Amino acid sequence: MRHVCPTRGGEGEPLLSNTEVCRIVELASRLMFPGFFTESYRGQSVMRAVMTLECHELHELLSRQIAAGLCFDRDNCESSVEEIHKRANTDADAFIESLPELRRVLDTDIDATYLGDPAAVSTHEIIACYPGFRATISYRIAHRLQLLEVPIVPRMITELAHSSTGIDIHPGASIGKSFVIDHGTGVVIGATAIIGDNVKIYQGVTLGAKSFVTDDSNNPVKGIPRHPIIGNNVVIYSNSTILGRITIGDDAVIGGNLWVTRDVAPGEKLIQARADNFRSTR
Amino acid sequence: MRHVCPTRGGEGEPLLSNTEVCRIVELASRLMFPGFFTESYRGQSVMRAVMTLECHELHELLSRQIAAGLCFDRDNCESSVEEIHKRANTDADAFIESLPELRRVLDTDIDATYLGDPAAVSTHEIIACYPGFRATISYRIAHRLQLLEVPIVPRMITELAHSSTGIDIHPGASIGKSFVIDHGTGVVIGATAIIGDNVKIYQGVTLGAKSFVTDDSNNPVKGIPRHPIIGNNVVIYSNSTILGRITIGDDAVIGGNLWVTRDVAPGEKLIQARADNFRSTR
Amino acid sequence: MRHVCPTRGGEGEPLLSNTEVCRIVELASRLMFPGFFTESYRGQSVMRAVMTLECHELHELLSRQIAAGLCFDRDNCESSVEEIHKRANTDADAFIESLPELRRVLDTDIDATYLGDPAAVSTHEIIACYPGFRATISYRIAHRLQLLEVPIVPRMITELAHSSTGIDIHPGASIGKSFVIDHGTGVVIGATAIIGDNVKIYQGVTLGAKSFVTDDSNNPVKGIPRHPIIGNNVVIYSNSTILGRITIGDDAVIGGNLWVTRDVAPGEKLIQARADNFRSTR
Amino acid sequence: MRHVCPTRGGEGEPLLSNTEVCRIVELASRLMFPGFFTESYRGQSVMRAVMTLECHELHELLSRQIAAGLCFDRDNCESSVEEIHKRANTDADAFIESLPELRRVLDTDIDATYLGDPAAVSTHEIIACYPGFRATISYRIAHRLQLLEVPIVPRMITELAHSSTGIDIHPGASIGKSFVIDHGTGVVIGATAIIGDNVKIYQGVTLGAKSFVTDDSNNPVKGIPRHPIIGNNVVIYSNSTILGRITIGDDAVIGGNLWVTRDVAPGEKLIQARADNFRSTR
Amino acid sequence: MRHVCPTRGGEGEPLLSNTEVCRIVELASRLMFPGFFTESYRGQSVMRAVMTLECHELHELLSRQIAAGLCFDRDNCESSVEEIHKRANTDADAFIESLPELRRVLDTDIDATYLGDPAAVSTHEIIACYPGFRATISYRIAHRLQLLEVPIVPRMITELAHSSTGIDIHPGASIGKSFVIDHGTGVVIGATAIIGDNVKIYQGVTLGAKSFVTDDSNNPVKGIPRHPIIGNNVVIYSNSTILGRITIGDDAVIGGNLWVTRDVAPGEKLIQARADNFRSTR
Amino acid sequence: MRHVCPTRGGEGEPLLSNTEVCRIVELASRLMFPGFFTESYRGQSVMRAVMTLECHELHELLSRQIAAGLCFDRDNCESSVEEIHKRANTDADAFIESLPELRRVLDTDIDATYLGDPAAVSTHEIIACYPGFRATISYRIAHRLQLLEVPIVPRMITELAHSSTGIDIHPGASIGKSFVIDHGTGVVIGATAIIGDNVKIYQGVTLGAKSFVTDDSNNPVKGIPRHPIIGNNVVIYSNSTILGRITIGDDAVIGGNLWVTRDVAPGEKLIQARADNFRSTR
Repeated sequence: MRHVCPTRGGEGEPLLSNTEVCRIVELASRLMFPGFFTESYRGQSVMRAVMTLECHELHELLSRQIAAGLCFDRDNCESSVEEIHKRANTDADAFIESLPELRRVLDTDIDATYLGDPAAVSTHEIIACYPGFRATISYRIAHRLQLLEVPIVPRMITELAHSSTGIDIHPGASIGKSFVIDHGTGVVIGATAIIGDNVKIYQGVTLGAKSFVTDDSNNPVKGIPRHPIIGNNVVIYSNSTILGRITIGDDAVIGGNLWVTRDVAPGEKLIQARADNFRSTR
Repeated sequence: MRHVCPTRGGEGEPLLSNTEVCRIVELASRLMFPGFFTESYRGQSVMRAVMTLECHELHELLSRQIAAGLCFDRDNCESSVEEIHKRANTDADAFIESLPELRRVLDTDIDATYLGDPAAVSTHEIIACYPGFRATISYRIAHRLQLLEVPIVPRMITELAHSSTGIDIHPGASIGKSFVIDHGTGVVIGATAIIGDNVKIYQGVTLGAKSFVTDDSNNPVKGIPRHPIIGNNVVIYSNSTILGRITIGDDAVIGGNLWVTRDVAPGEKLIQARADNFRSTR
Repeated sequence: MRHVCPTRGGEGEPLLSNTEVCRIVELASRLMFPGFFTESYRGQSVMRAVMTLECHELHELLSRQIAAGLCFDRDNCESSVEEIHKRANTDADAFIESLPELRRVLDTDIDATYLGDPAAVSTHEIIACYPGFRATISYRIAHRLQLLEVPIVPRMITELAHSSTGIDIHPGASIGKSFVIDHGTGVVIGATAIIGDNVKIYQGVTLGAKSFVTDDSNNPVKGIPRHPIIGNNVVIYSNSTILGRITIGDDAVIGGNLWVTRDVAPGEKLIQARADNFRSTR
Repeated sequence: MRHVCPTRGGEGEPLLSNTEVCRIVELASRLMFPGFFTESYRGQSVMRAVMTLECHELHELLSRQIAAGLCFDRDNCESSVEEIHKRANTDADAFIESLPELRRVLDTDIDATYLGDPAAVSTHEIIACYPGFRATISYRIAHRLQLLEVPIVPRMITELAHSSTGIDIHPGASIGKSFVIDHGTGVVIGATAIIGDNVKIYQGVTLGAKSFVTDDSNNPVKGIPRHPIIGNNVVIYSNSTILGRITIGDDAVIGGNLWVTRDVAPGEKLIQARADNFRSTR
Repeated sequence: MRHVCPTRGGEGEPLLSNTEVCRIVELASRLMFPGFFTESYRGQSVMRAVMTLECHELHELLSRQIAAGLCFDRDNCESSVEEIHKRANTDADAFIESLPELRRVLDTDIDATYLGDPAAVSTHEIIACYPGFRATISYRIAHRLQLLEVPIVPRMITELAHSSTGIDIHPGASIGKSFVIDHGTGVVIGATAIIGDNVKIYQGVTLGAKSFVTDDSNNPVKGIPRHPIIGNNVVIYSNSTILGRITIGDDAVIGGNLWVTRDVAPGEKLIQARADNFRSTR
Repeated sequence: MRHVCPTRGGEGEPLLSNTEVCRIVELASRLMFPGFFTESYRGQSVMRAVMTLECHELHELLSRQIAAGLCFDRDNCESSVEEIHKRANTDADAFIESLPELRRVLDTDIDATYLGDPAAVSTHEIIACYPGFRATISYRIAHRLQLLEVPIVPRMITELAHSSTGIDIHPGASIGKSFVIDHGTGVVIGATAIIGDNVKIYQGVTLGAKSFVTDDSNNPVKGIPRHPIIGNNVVIYSNSTILGRITIGDDAVIGGNLWVTRDVAPGEKLIQARADNFRSTR
């Protein structure tokens, strides 16, 4: 098969594990939001000890899974196992150091969700229950690892969130602050999408590619921008499909159930063509 | 953060737990449909003993989670822990007493599903396999708790169903008998929606809010009706988006992929505007 | 209730179990793709022993669940438990013998996915992460059991995949090789749908029934063809709804968010009617 | 190997299991002493339901292990599996019916222990903590099964008690009421020993065989009485060894560390020969 | 039954649990010997966090089990549950504060064991493997709780050690420093025994009561001294039985297999009477 | 502390684990006696696969525990972790290769047990139930590792057997074929004991050291012979204590409850001095 090291797979090498990746997301979430994502109460006095241990566990699991991802990737075929472990260690350190910064962005997402949802009773409820927020936290963790050029692990993280929330955000996408996904089932955001600040997206919305370039041997060319650019303060209602490297301008509103493959001007408001009545009884 | 008691969180207080909430739904389902939702066979003679124990376990878990929800809610900041436990106990009793009534409504949902699906082999299959029914049972349990004004737990119940079925019904919605959701992934039904009897909804349908009122400090005003009213005998095909406090009259049929933000008359049948052919090759 | 043997349910009879059905899919997947779907590394030398045991376990679980399905089904009310176990054994044998053939078809699905997705880094990643492929592997396993006329178990298999991927393919559908579902949340493919080779379907697409025939007592007539026929090399973009026993010709392209209830000619390319601008501000 | 059916061992046959035998002893103990041997409190109202289920579980496990024992035994080589299961069922019924009688005898053991131990704080403590009582309860259960001629399972029961208490009572021994073993580590009571009422035995005491008869091929002849007969009201102090088919008369007292291979008269009191002083330094 | 509160046993009361008592011993052992009694390595940096959590867990379990013991005891029938929990809390605090002192005494036991056993390879081995040391650590923990007048829990602790080592030391016994039990199976040390410093005891040794005083209703009188007093530097070889409130003087040596019911002078060395040869063949 | 490497304990080093050592004994026992020591039946066809995997698992666990033992031992302070792993690997290989030879000796132990016990129903029962055999199998495994000079692990193995059987055999002892321990609680066999063929030992027997040599700093000198030499065909009855580097000649019989510190001639039969009657009532 393609793009996998033929020489890898020795007995000592770390292996990718969905169970460990799942735990990594849980630990990172707990460290960013102490007291959430846990079911047994811990008094203030032991909280610090718990966080020390969870931070240690996060580092151990994350550096192992990063190493497994590096072993999995063809580009590292030449590296020794020692070099891979060393880089994995460095990447895990860098990730953990970025947690406070991630927390700050996630706080803007929580606030935007609370302000935009009359049904939300508290920000606590959003952290504990909202699938849109769960998908966003996974995306922001995965995107951070993607920036560190960790192979495959970011994708595993977002697919785990996809499975539990129905929201599929590629870790390569770039998303600004105060981001809100409401309900969210069926949302797809592609690898080269760029999203501004203060954007709200409803269930079933696709930010996808319309087509792609192939090379001489008919293989798709990787890495070419092919997904939309969404400006600031844009709202996209449910089930709309926005395809191709088009631009949706700031403050635009895209109604639901639309097929959009052209640029939309700043402030423009699109709505579906008026429905017909049935011409005959069913 | 907002709307959470600042003084709560002492070591003796009960804690919200997704694991326990999940078990509550399982136990209530088993008690309503004895013999289902279980993997080990129990002879008639021990069934009664099992139900006695499961009823006892349901009461224990439910009163603990209700108490946890009450502690979580700002409105109960003034209550003592004893008052909270007493109310939780009363609510759990009331819920368990309502199970036979819930069962009667769910039976109408099962019959309607069976009659409307040529692929259904038996009503047993619907209870065991159909995600639409699983989401409906969770909604009806959650709605019952919502009527008892239990905070947050109803929402946890419907979000658990959302995660496993892709169907997101707010526990505040009001839904009549003989309700059918087919396939269901992506369905969203908002907090103030009102649905009549004998309604069928397909996958991807949204009954949502179009906009909402904000107060002087720009916070959304809670509790204002903002979702559709659906009459009796209505069918809504897949992926349609029905937004705002509009009314869909009795016997109306909404075709798929529509964006509907106006009232629809009784018996009216809406269909998408005719598609164009592509003007250019992709 | 309907279509369930009233005389069944004795203490010695096997019982349907989602846990066992889930393990059956896992074991069949591992046997077809040795080294995948497992988290602990096994050297070449022990791999054979593991596969022997997993094959043995698969046979045991599968014949028990097939027997449970047969006991569940009204059509087998007359059979003795011994006859049922004997048939279950034979069916499990036949299924296991078909695994190499299933693997060959799945390989065409993997290749088609890789060639059609610029974001795919390797075919390994597709096997390990892509929900579209996970749903396809479950469908192909379930469809094979459906051909052996195993009751209910195939449906349990596809509903498990539905729950974790949001993709709902009825085991009765007929699907050619090189099949691709991208992202996939919300996809529905009905029981009598027929899909050619080299077809690609995006998230939210429905291949459903528009209506169905009822008999004199108003029950739906089972088994009548009522879902679309899709030709070779067809692409259907996200959220489109294709309903009824219509035919989509070879090489057709269906744009997103369409409602299609008429035949589409070979090579025809459909696109949504042009959107209007909002007539008033929201 | 000897005395095992060469034709047994088919896939459908039940297997001996220490785990199940251990659970059998636990369940029988709980049914005889409701509220003990359990760690979670059950209110009066659910106790009955728990006991119904535990009684059912006991019957299931016991009849399976009896059947496994019968399959294991050469004497049943000719029986069909059906005959074996039928007999196992009958034996399990008979055992469960004898529990109230066993409880009455055990109550005399508890009372005798309490009256004879100044360190015992309550009879509850004896039931919960005393290894002598634990060994006695296991012996009385095993002996009851021995009387039903169940093969090997009684021995498994007493060996489990031996492992956790150091007290090795053969299930074939016959022991009267008000029996006390104090501390008990190292006690051995052989298969043909007969013990009267109101006997007290300390740690390290052996009631063993001195020699045994062999047949022409030098195999030991089974079933010949070869262990002591102990009268009523006898006390045997720690570490004494009583060997052979001798009789210890009523009310006799055997001091510690004795080697006794002759009859002891009623009321006789034996004590070790006076110790010497060391003749040389160590 | 005797000496148990008839009014206890309400649903909110803590229950005695062997599992929790076992964990209490494990946690206290780990806190006294950091790095031992654990199977996963923890670096220096996380060790402190682990110890903080284990100390917290120890306090929680210990105060619950002490409270359960107090509820169990007749003497506390008059106390409210609140008073019981308060006292349990205070006792748990006092116990944890005494751990450094317990550690200092245990260090003398370890050193004495190492110096007295040519087979011991390291003091580490003694801590990790020697049943005599395991029984001693359990005794010292239990004795400490006994001094705090905690009911029944100390006895549960020593019976757990009895079950795993065959060594039965009553928590009421008083034992000096540098205490060694070698091999140990069958050792019994009674409730009122007093043992000096630097004593070594081999397997099978009993320090027991010879008889006891009964009151008018024939119940044993509790608390009267009835076990031996052992001086400093005494050695008692295997299987000897020392009974009654006698005194074994400093530096005495008791050979094996003796029955001793009289005082032994300081420095005296006792040995068994010379054995006879068999008078007849066996 | 003494004899432990001060420089060891790095994060990558293997750790001693009772759980793993316990599993090692279980796996080696299963491989020597296929079909025993397991609770789920495996048909002939899968037995080979199971054995392949268990052999692989045994090698992995054993080489890790040997390495942990080597790291623990002061003598290997100079070795690199790589050298240690290499030696551990070689030792594990050598051990596994010796299993057929161990099985042959154990078969002589089983036959001798069966021939010497009228209560034994079959040789199967001996393998499955007899603590004497369980202790012997553990000893023979541990002794084999001792011959390979593996540190501490052999001792952990025999202490695990000691805890569950009450039989304490030092792995350094040398024991001939056809060895029988009956009942066995309290048996102690010291590190330098030498036992011939066809020896039978009853419960409570000690083969111990009487005293030992100390060096100038009062530490015991390790490795000097200090335990008895037992000839062929010797029987030692219960609770006897045989101390020091004495010789018990072939065919000797040692009665119970004896203290023996002098040589016993071949064929000599020793018995305890005749007991006295009590001089006074108790």
